[in-house]
Amino acid sequence: MAEPWVNSAERIGSDLYLELSGTGSRRAVLIRALRDAVRDGRLAPGTRLPPYRSLAADLGLARNTVADAYAELVAEGWLTARQGSGTRVAERAAPPKPVRTPKPAPARPAAPAYDLRQGRPDPASFPRTAWLAAARRAVNSAPGDAFGPGDPRGRVELRQALTDYLRRARGVRVAPERIVVCSGFAHALRLLYGGSHGAGGPVLRGPLAVESYGLGFHRGILEDAGVRTVPLELDEQGARIEELTAGQDVRDVRGVRGVRGVQDVRGVLLTPAHQFPTGGPLHPARRAAVVDWARTSGGLVLEDDYDGEFRYDREPVGALQGLDPERVVYLGSVSKSLSPAVRLGWMVLPEHLVDGVLAAKGEREAWAGVLDQLTLADLIASGQYDRHVRRMRQRYRRRRDRLVAALAEHAPHIAATGVAAGLHAVLRLPPGTEASATKAAAWQGVALDGLAAFRHPRARGRGADGLAAFRHPRARGRGADGLVVGYSTPSEHAYGAAIEALVRALPPGDSGGGADG
Amino acid sequence: MAEPWVNSAERIGSDLYLELSGTGSRRAVLIRALRDAVRDGRLAPGTRLPPYRSLAADLGLARNTVADAYAELVAEGWLTARQGSGTRVAERAAPPKPVRTPKPAPARPAAPAYDLRQGRPDPASFPRTAWLAAARRAVNSAPGDAFGPGDPRGRVELRQALTDYLRRARGVRVAPERIVVCSGFAHALRLLYGGSHGAGGPVLRGPLAVESYGLGFHRGILEDAGVRTVPLELDEQGARIEELTAGQDVRDVRGVRGVRGVQDVRGVLLTPAHQFPTGGPLHPARRAAVVDWARTSGGLVLEDDYDGEFRYDREPVGALQGLDPERVVYLGSVSKSLSPAVRLGWMVLPEHLVDGVLAAKGEREAWAGVLDQLTLADLIASGQYDRHVRRMRQRYRRRRDRLVAALAEHAPHIAATGVAAGLHAVLRLPPGTEASATKAAAWQGVALDGLAAFRHPRARGRGADGLAAFRHPRARGRGADGLVVGYSTPSEHAYGAAIEALVRALPPGDSGGGADG
Repeated sequence: MAEPWVNSAERIGSDLYLELSGTGSRRAVLIRALRDAVRDGRLAPGTRLPPYRSLAADLGLARNTVADAYAELVAEGWLTARQGSGTRVAERAAPPKPVRTPKPAPARPAAPAYDLRQGRPDPASFPRTAWLAAARRAVNSAPGDAFGPGDPRGRVELRQALTDYLRRARGVRVAPERIVVCSGFAHALRLLYGGSHGAGGPVLRGPLAVESYGLGFHRGILEDAGVRTVPLELDEQGARIEELTAGQDVRDVRGVRGVRGVQDVRGVLLTPAHQFPTGGPLHPARRAAVVDWARTSGGLVLEDDYDGEFRYDREPVGALQGLDPERVVYLGSVSKSLSPAVRLGWMVLPEHLVDGVLAAKGEREAWAGVLDQLTLADLIASGQYDRHVRRMRQRYRRRRDRLVAALAEHAPHIAATGVAAGLHAVLRLPPGTEASATKAAAWQGVALDGLAAFRHPRARGRGADGLAAFRHPRARGRGADGLVVGYSTPSEHAYGAAIEALVRALPPGDSGGGADG
Repeated sequence: MAEPWVNSAERIGSDLYLELSGTGSRRAVLIRALRDAVRDGRLAPGTRLPPYRSLAADLGLARNTVADAYAELVAEGWLTARQGSGTRVAERAAPPKPVRTPKPAPARPAAPAYDLRQGRPDPASFPRTAWLAAARRAVNSAPGDAFGPGDPRGRVELRQALTDYLRRARGVRVAPERIVVCSGFAHALRLLYGGSHGAGGPVLRGPLAVESYGLGFHRGILEDAGVRTVPLELDEQGARIEELTAGQDVRDVRGVRGVRGVQDVRGVLLTPAHQFPTGGPLHPARRAAVVDWARTSGGLVLEDDYDGEFRYDREPVGALQGLDPERVVYLGSVSKSLSPAVRLGWMVLPEHLVDGVLAAKGEREAWAGVLDQLTLADLIASGQYDRHVRRMRQRYRRRRDRLVAALAEHAPHIAATGVAAGLHAVLRLPPGTEASATKAAAWQGVALDGLAAFRHPRARGRGADGLAAFRHPRARGRGADGLVVGYSTPSEHAYGAAIEALVRALPPGDSGGGADG
């Protein structure tokens, strides 16, 4: 009957806060304090009280005083004492007075049966065992200073491991002194643009060109920081870099003028390895062109290498940063490769930005957990990170193949594009069918987003968005309709059913479309 | 001689990024790419290359193509091949071309022999074993969704554990719905005041009253966010709350007018349990007065409970928040109780602020590591956190006692104040001796700060700072001189020597001062 004390949070040795104030003998004050604690819920029914000697020592009272107070409260019915179980708050004691009942949390939509939203690695695949083994090695071997205030650059162990890894696997030109660790891509954007009102000001200033399709979450961070974003249209070769130099005079193939203001930008944020979400790599000529633009204009390229590790059919696309480490900021994180639960990312910075970013971070590490940093460093240096990435690459490739095969069989009129890499594909839809397709998917229990959810609000009109790769053959000026299908999130056993549900939601075919992979 | 491959980061299965471009046969392209990788340092001398079959599969090439390329590069001297050791980059290969040599990092002062700066828990006491055990339990038993995008409120496991702990140990009136997890106190300040330029605006606006002694780091965060801080003078009962209501008309005991602007503040940031750094608790009458002020004025109290767990001689001082959970924001973290390496803190919010703070955090957890959150939740719920705090309390109390005893013996003219709680004491010095004493301490290898380092730059003149408890008996209008001595940082074996060095740095005594504890 008696619970073993080792399983109780309120067991011997626990801290107990008591308000010992007011008039009367010490015993009376203590009794009142204990009663209050029971009444207002700080001591819940069933809670075991500390032994006399422990509480007496804590409060600077005689043991007898505490023993007398306990006995009195047992007599009054507030407490119970039983041999072997110690003194506990009686079950009949007043229930805790709650904090004023909070509003119910804003209703979160019920979890969908099948989660095909992009951007979430398979949560069931987190390498728990490897992570814990790395944590054990890292924490046990950490020098004492690891437990003091952290270096805002990040632990040197992690910066060294990242240097080796990014050079080898991504072609980044990097030294540990150029890396600043942060808690993820969003944090990096805030450090770069979310400047202070104080002396230093922000590290970078807008306006900033961004791809006309991308994460609204990121655009929101920039706009919250007062940075105007200017959409750069996409075509089959990726972002139209030439708009940066041509400015207002640029006209696309259909004679539509370029976006106002794009010639004023001081930087451009790109996803060169795998455009998010449309899925193609930036054409080599454009890679060179954007670096030329940065050199000529004094501008900067921000390279979001969010899923560069995951490529399936084509040669790896190295980091753009390798072309000019002084004009490109390289940004990465573990959010896709491991899990967004591990809040770690990194910036590889041109020399002239290092001091500014460190000033923005402040004197001490205020965000990125040091034990996680050491653990990740061990995971990379021991080769377990590579091993995990490789395993996940195989798993995601198989899922990608199953998606493509299911479409070929059941919906041959729907083309899956952007499938050579990454954790998602884009299904091109007949014009005007995107909204109804996402609605149909929801009916099938499938959560996913249409392309429209990623479109920059100031992108040019649907008829002029230049997204040639996404213009349906029959679109004739209506623009891109598509579904962004993340294939990494469902569990292995649910994936087949998720694809079946997705296929049921797709608009019916006709003779006008053709499949292409 | 041969290293076992399992110990090499570049072993079988590692990712290797190669730029396969340009003209020529596949073999020629691969040879050129490997040469480039060696030349520019991505493949360092000694690095083991992947086996033929692995690289061939990665690149979509025939095995023979890769084998031929390796053989050619061995012949050219770029690589070496040895039985049992695989193919490696030759030691004689060109050394890596470094990234443009970074400036040497700004010279960090050499670590002092004895670190008596305040605010750092003993790094040698971090409970590595208990933390790792908690991490193992937490990570192994975590549900799958723990590895997906995080809830910006923080994991429910942690908010529940904190609810139980803060009620019991600190008298906080709290429910899990009122807690928002963050990465520490500085992050909490940024979430509350560092508002966006966008639609929402900041959660709170200034000006904000702060204690006239405190952390400049925190004032800096506020000022960076555009929040004006107004110093509130201290006396022997803590912060002079009456200045909030009296505004410009307040005069202190010496007839000096109050600070301009203090009547305009919308909030007040306090350290009620243990004023930082002077060390006293806020007088009960003032605790009541500041809550009354908040209720009357619609203002808000920010309670920084930075070391509330560590009290030695006196009754625990409960959280001010318990007096009115709707007018007090309670802020805590593990930075003092565990380590600043674990970037976790919490805010207990009035109901009307919860939604605003969550909006400031954004849709997903972008900072606080989820695995650390689960680990801390386990540490608290299993009772190990209490056990660690109790052990550290005993250790710090012994250190405090040794400091006080050393002063009584060797420098009886120096009074140590603020010693009933916390991780530091303040040594009162004869007027005008603080600067020379900190310099003398540095000569003795002791790092510490004088009181002046914590003084608000707009606090009233030294003759009028109202810091009666810190006015030396002979000060006569000159104000407070003192040393802030953190006794938690040195290792156990270095502590005695640190105190001896400190004592040697103290100004010589005369008949004017008297010791008081």
